[in-house]
Order: sequence, then C-alpha cells, then structure tokens
Amino acid sequence: MKNYKISIIKGDGIGPEIVDEAIKVLNAVAKKCDFSLSYKEYLMGGIAIDTTGVPLPAETVEGVLNSDACLFGAIGGEKWDTLPRELRPETGLLKFREEMGVYANLRPAIIYDELVNASTLKPEVIKGVDIMIVRELIGGIYFGKPRENDGFKAFNTMVYTKPEIVRIGKTAFELARKRDKRVCSVDKANVLEVSQLWRDTMNELAKDYPDVELTHMYVDNAAMQLVRNPKQFDVIVTGNIFGDILSDTASMVVGSIGLLPSASTGDKTAIYEPIHGSAPDIAGMGIANPLATIVSAAMMLRYSLNEDKAADMIEEAIKAVLKDGYRTKDLAAFDAKKVLNTVQMGDIIVDYI
Amino acid sequence: MKNYKISIIKGDGIGPEIVDEAIKVLNAVAKKCDFSLSYKEYLMGGIAIDTTGVPLPAETVEGVLNSDACLFGAIGGEKWDTLPRELRPETGLLKFREEMGVYANLRPAIIYDELVNASTLKPEVIKGVDIMIVRELIGGIYFGKPRENDGFKAFNTMVYTKPEIVRIGKTAFELARKRDKRVCSVDKANVLEVSQLWRDTMNELAKDYPDVELTHMYVDNAAMQLVRNPKQFDVIVTGNIFGDILSDTASMVVGSIGLLPSASTGDKTAIYEPIHGSAPDIAGMGIANPLATIVSAAMMLRYSLNEDKAADMIEEAIKAVLKDGYRTKDLAAFDAKKVLNTVQMGDIIVDYI
Ligand SMILES: CC(C)[C@H](C(=O)O)[C@@H](O)C(=O)O
Ligand SMILES: CC(C)[C@H](C(=O)O)[C@@H](O)C(=O)O
Repeated sequence: MKNYKISIIKGDGIGPEIVDEAIKVLNAVAKKCDFSLSYKEYLMGGIAIDTTGVPLPAETVEGVLNSDACLFGAIGGEKWDTLPRELRPETGLLKFREEMGVYANLRPAIIYDELVNASTLKPEVIKGVDIMIVRELIGGIYFGKPRENDGFKAFNTMVYTKPEIVRIGKTAFELARKRDKRVCSVDKANVLEVSQLWRDTMNELAKDYPDVELTHMYVDNAAMQLVRNPKQFDVIVTGNIFGDILSDTASMVVGSIGLLPSASTGDKTAIYEPIHGSAPDIAGMGIANPLATIVSAAMMLRYSLNEDKAADMIEEAIKAVLKDGYRTKDLAAFDAKKVLNTVQMGDIIVDYI
Repeated sequence: MKNYKISIIKGDGIGPEIVDEAIKVLNAVAKKCDFSLSYKEYLMGGIAIDTTGVPLPAETVEGVLNSDACLFGAIGGEKWDTLPRELRPETGLLKFREEMGVYANLRPAIIYDELVNASTLKPEVIKGVDIMIVRELIGGIYFGKPRENDGFKAFNTMVYTKPEIVRIGKTAFELARKRDKRVCSVDKANVLEVSQLWRDTMNELAKDYPDVELTHMYVDNAAMQLVRNPKQFDVIVTGNIFGDILSDTASMVVGSIGLLPSASTGDKTAIYEPIHGSAPDIAGMGIANPLATIVSAAMMLRYSLNEDKAADMIEEAIKAVLKDGYRTKDLAAFDAKKVLNTVQMGDIIVDYI
C-alpha cells in the first residue's frame, strides 16, 4: 500500500479547526482508495512565535522539504501585530514561501451550481464561472528590496526580472492549454515600468504558445470586470500583490472566501492552503467553513500525489452536501437548508464519501 | 451676474462626446440659476500628442491654473500605447495631476434607488450604499522614484512620507465629520513597510478626531468586502494604486463605471472628471454614458463654485430620468425601459431641468 508523507501546518486562529476537518476527510478517502497518509505537524506563524520565539522555525522548512506535500491552514492575529516586523506571523509565511520556492500560486475560482445563489452577485452573472488565477508568489513588491520605514518616510520596491516573468507566464500558458486556451495577463503598464516589462515579456512568451490567446488588462479594470462579467475569464496571470487583491475579489464571485483553495508550486514541495486568513474573530467558535481547506486537500491529492480518484471523491461529496442544502454560517445568507458548524461539515462530507 | 471661468479638457476616445453633454447640462442650470460660465478648451493626452507633440502642453497647465475649475473627460488609446513612456497620454495626465497638486481624489459611490437593479450585485446588497473613496493621487507607486526598466529587470517604488499621509488623512477625517463619522483606512501593513507608516500615521492623526471612528483593513480584504457588504463603509481612505483598484470595484457596486464622478482637489484649481477611461472601443459610436461626467459637473458646481442649487438641480434631474426608465447602453442589462444614446441622455436631462 502506498504511503505519502504529508507535512501539516495548522497555524493560528481558525487554522487548527479547519485543518483537522481536512485531515478527517483525507483519511476517509485514503481508506477507500487504498493508500495511506502519515502526517507530521510543524509550527509556523503566531503559534511558532509563542512556542519557539520565531515565526518560521528551521525544522518546519526542513520537515516540509522532506515531505511529499504540505497542507497548511492560516496564520496571523492581532496579538502579534505589534511585534517588530521580522517577528510577525506574516513574515514567517513569506519566508516560508520563499524558502519553498513556490513561485506559482494557483487559485481556482469555480462556481458550484449548488451555490449559485450564495453569492452577493446575481445567479445569471456567475453561473458557470471557472477561472484559474495564477499569482506570482515569491517576487514583486512582497519581496522587493530596498524596503525601509524610518518613521518619516517609508518605501517598498515592486520589482520583476524577465526570468521570473517567463517562469510564471509558462505556468499560466501550460494551464490554459488544458482549459479554454485563453490567458489574460493583468498589470498596470500604463503607469508602471515593472508592468511594462511584464507585458512585453508575456507578449514574447506568447509566441511559443500560438494555440493560446493572450490578452492584457489593467488591474483596475480587471477588478471591475471580475464583478461585471466574471465569465469572460479563463486563466488570469498576474504579479504578487495584484493577484492577492484579485483572488479575494474572485472569492466573492464564488460566494464566500471560505470556498477557495490554492496550490503553491515551484520546484520543491508544493503547499496547499485555503486563500482565506486565520479569521481570529471567529477562532475557537467552531463556525469556520472548512471547505476551502478540504478542497485544498483534494488539490493536493490530484497534483502532488496523483490520486485523482480520491480527489474526485472529495469534490463529489462536497457537491452532494451542498446540493442537499448544507451550509456553514458564511454561506447561509441566501439559501441554506441546514446550517452546520465546522466539525459537522467535516463529518457530513466523510459520511457522503 | 456671476461669471465663472471653466477650463475644459475633452481628451481622447469618448472624452469629447461626454464632455459636450456635461457642458450642455451646465449651460441649462446656469440659465436657471442666474450665473454664467465661460469655457476655454485645452489639450491633453493623445490629441495633445498629435497636435503639439507632447501629452501635456504648458498652455494647458497655465490655463487650468487660471480658471475657477476644470472639467475633464478622459485620455488614452491604443494608438499611443507604443510611444516612449514620456510621450504617452497617461504620462501627461499624471504630470497634470502633479502640477495641479491635486493630492485628494474624491470618488463617491452612491446608489441611485432608481438603479438598484442595474448592478450585477443583488439589490438587497447594494440598496442604500453611500461610500466616499478618498484616494491619494500624487504620491505612492505612481510617482515614486527610482523607477526603471532596462529590458531585463524593472522596478517601481511605492513611497509615502508622513506629511503626505497626514494631508490625505485630514481630508478623509474632515469628510467623515460631515457624513457618518467613520473612516476605514486601507493598506497592506502586514507585508509593506510603506503601509506600516501609513497605518501608524493614521492612528496618530485619529487622536485629533475623537468624534470619528478609524478602522483599518487590508487591501485584499477591502476588495472583497466591497462586493460582500458594501454598506459597511462610510469613508475609505487609501493610497494611489489601491484607490485606483478599489474605486473601479466600487463602480460595479453602483451598477456601471459610467456613473461614478470624481473630484481631484489640492491647494490650487480642482479637477472634475468621470472615473472611467476613454473607452476607445466605443468612441465615436455615440453610445457612451455621459452621466459620470454630468455628475462630475454637478460636483464642480457644489465644491468649486458654491452653486449648490444648480448642483441639486442636476442631481434631481438625473434621478428623475433614471426613475422614468431611461438608460444608456451600459445600464441596459437589467431594467431599461428606454435605451438612449449619449446625446439623447444629455438632452433629456436638460429637458427635465
Ligand atoms: C497573510 C498575507 C501575507 C497573505 C498575502 O498577502 O499573500 C494572504 O493575504 C494571502 O493571500 O495568502
Ligand atoms: C489612466 C490611468 C493613468 C488612471 C490612473 O490609474 O490613475 C485611471 O485609471 C484613473 O483611475 O484615473
């Protein structure tokens, strides 16, 4: 029987609650599909600060590098917001992404037909939406130097090099080939030099993919078009901070940020995590939506472990559960039949599996 | 009889069409309210490049500085996108903003009850929305140096100083005092040093406004919250590029980017313009929505000329026209009774006045 080594980072806030449900679901499909998973837990974020004094202990990096894939919850919370920047949870996360070399962050935004009424957008606007946002994750203004804050003046640097753009561009074009063959590259080339290089490089790269259509859109317009007519998009490729903003916008198209999974991939171990944060305001209340994490686990099965059947089973179970009207609180505004808490949602998915 | 000197910049694309309608409406209310307006036209953007060789002729700056207020359409178009950066329409606009010292860009997003069905968002989500976005306009990554693109590596600098943040913060707090007394400052302080200075400075400034509530939100979350629950916002204050993205998102809440006006103010002449662009794809077709420009003209009457009665008349006429089911094409998706072209929309507003 195949065994996979999964590294687990639960993190802060609702992190532990939602990751526990995903593990429950993973175990259920492993049993059905005849493979086994062994988990090893590592610390990152606020809990790592409290326990070890730093937001990203060396053991975490090493442990994840030695695993087949990493399932991650979320980090951060007000408690640590006043620490010096190098000791904050977010700094640990960014360093983690960098050390893992996960330059490509894939954030699919797919509408479940069962949830077409859960969004604040009209059903006819969102029905059938299937967008893949490809966000560059270890460059741009998140990592650019110099960066400084002397209390009077502060600055950051948004920087990209051609190889960085080519690398993420290739990911987008390759993904588009397996989908509707359309890439929309988002930038602010009418204002920013760094966006001009981004655009020129994408245009050059497009020559290698004559079967894929490349278009460009300014980031302000893209934010608007995601709300106006999200169905127009297939693959969106963009830089780190624009991707951060646009994928959160896309989550609303889909109905709740509690639904969107992500995969962060590079040349080493891939990381799977919900796109939402640690939601300290609802931590410990047992009402968090574990679905984004559970779908992230399904992505992990599909992309890192090649266990497609197991991934399918999870996705089918989620659809069935939603179809039967089960909702977590975040999704309950418009059409819930039964509102479940975090654990109940995990349990019922296991039942349906 | 009072006479006001208005500088007019029509610009490119649909610019001339929409500004012409606004002038028509301005003349109608001037007549009713017993003041007169004299207009002088100046060049900027693509048309300035074609006519004078540069996107911002010196006469434009001088002329606008010598006027009581400036009404501006929009600039830009593919035709000029391949010119060297210093010769592009957008470069002219940015230089114009800088020379005018218009650091505060006010972008109100108000739902007309009459248009509550025109948005892609559900009516119950948007009914009653009344947001004022205060965007810093002459700093941040738009103007930060160093900036460079050598074809292999390119970068821009997102920079703010404390006085720049205080200045725009004051604008936001003062506006909030006349509204619901709540300011939400949007940044990315969990990642960016420049945002940390922004946040710290806003917190300090808030002490001078104990009657106004200050909250902070990360930009990714703000983009999402604008779609999830736009009614939660009163005044939003943010930096240049975040404001660019968020105000376009807000325009969809309101139903169409063809509706949102803006005022750019500083210590010199204020500029009034729609937040939308020059829309080259529909230029000359006579279908552009002139309402954002007409509402901008109303803002000009109110804020620069203190002609409140005239401003009220325009706003009332627009509401009545919308109530009677008149729509331009961009608004026609959900509930139009009669679809008008650009000139017809201007005409009917004059009729109602
Ligand atoms: C927590 C934060 C640093 C992070 C980011 O901005 O990348 C988060 O918003 C995300 O999108 O994963
Ligand atoms: C045309 C462009 C330079 C401009 C901007 O980004 O400021 C526009 O999008 C706006 O919002 O006024």
